[in-house]
Amino acid sequence: MAEISTTDFAVTELNKVHRLPQRGHYDRETIYAILDAAIICHASFVQDGQPFVIPTLYARTDDTLLLHGAPASRLLRHIAAGEPVSISVAILDGLVLAKSAFHHSVNYRSAVVFGCGRLLEDGAEKLAALAVLTEHLAPGRWAATRRPSPAELKATTVAAIVIESASAKVRVGPPVDAADDLALPVWAGVLPIHETFGAAIPADHCDPALDPPVIER
Amino acid sequence: MAEISTTDFAVTELNKVHRLPQRGHYDRETIYAILDAAIICHASFVQDGQPFVIPTLYARTDDTLLLHGAPASRLLRHIAAGEPVSISVAILDGLVLAKSAFHHSVNYRSAVVFGCGRLLEDGAEKLAALAVLTEHLAPGRWAATRRPSPAELKATTVAAIVIESASAKVRVGPPVDAADDLALPVWAGVLPIHETFGAAIPADHCDPALDPPVIER
Repeated sequence: MAEISTTDFAVTELNKVHRLPQRGHYDRETIYAILDAAIICHASFVQDGQPFVIPTLYARTDDTLLLHGAPASRLLRHIAAGEPVSISVAILDGLVLAKSAFHHSVNYRSAVVFGCGRLLEDGAEKLAALAVLTEHLAPGRWAATRRPSPAELKATTVAAIVIESASAKVRVGPPVDAADDLALPVWAGVLPIHETFGAAIPADHCDPALDPPVIER
Repeated sequence: MAEISTTDFAVTELNKVHRLPQRGHYDRETIYAILDAAIICHASFVQDGQPFVIPTLYARTDDTLLLHGAPASRLLRHIAAGEPVSISVAILDGLVLAKSAFHHSVNYRSAVVFGCGRLLEDGAEKLAALAVLTEHLAPGRWAATRRPSPAELKATTVAAIVIESASAKVRVGPPVDAADDLALPVWAGVLPIHETFGAAIPADHCDPALDPPVIER
């Protein structure tokens, strides 16, 4: 695997954070940590001037985002045609409750990526990408489960999108209240939001003697 | 408030669920329940042929999605110009772990909306929209907190997007494993994912005698 560049992304009209620029980040460390933390991304593309946005699974490896799906996927056919995509990942960390309605907000980490992609045609490259996608979704499962058969590999289209430009936007911390509001008798603070796993639900065809895996994400 | 139409959205090339059409839904009840359950949406628009997608807060009222932000927001200026947007909401409900890598999946509820919008100029209409946005984010806070001042109202741009077309896509239930894999000694099932609130963190300027609100979302 290639080394990940440690340089920042150049700030251009494409990735510049216009609103609340103090929340903007252009370094790979911040952006990639967000991309590595979420499970679903939103990919957007243009068809006949119309914007489309769809949620999909993804994974990052080095400076590349991987997507996969059925060969008929509109998004993947669009990527195959060399058209640009924009992909966003957002993680909600909390509700920010202020003393005024105006200063209500959310704590979040988001990253937006721009690039063009290509479909992986080489079987070994495709298999390696599916390993990355599986491990991103549920670490440990690539080693634990049956690997794709040639027919399954053929039925899966994998796209690799080089991250040409990107930025992150992050809000942390308490509400910012107006000076005149500080003494209002209204609770102000943050309600943190966490994504947690509930109790595992074994499938009917799963041997009850087997223990569910511990997924560390 | 206008009555919500109870008819389904027409299936067109815009909103048709192509991949796994059995997961597609076109009825308002399903689509609006998803829109009402999430906190962040992803809005996409086209600028000079380039797709953009950004996460933002939103709320639904009747057949309209509301967005708000600073007047300089690229998305809101785009909506003001009458350009089409596509907005997606996705809720991750669980990891679906199969006996093969290929059949791994996620349980989710997602909705994609298409429409054009307009900016609200009328002060009363804008205030009503901000009430809906605040109540969607954190029910009860509109009544509990200081309402927007004229200056704050002016500093907030609100867009209303009529939902012209939409669809939902939902996956529930256990993994679907290939017949040949059923006896493999690999755990298979669902790891449910829940979004939960952690312990409230009062702001330094919050009177410790005040109790945090109970937000029911």
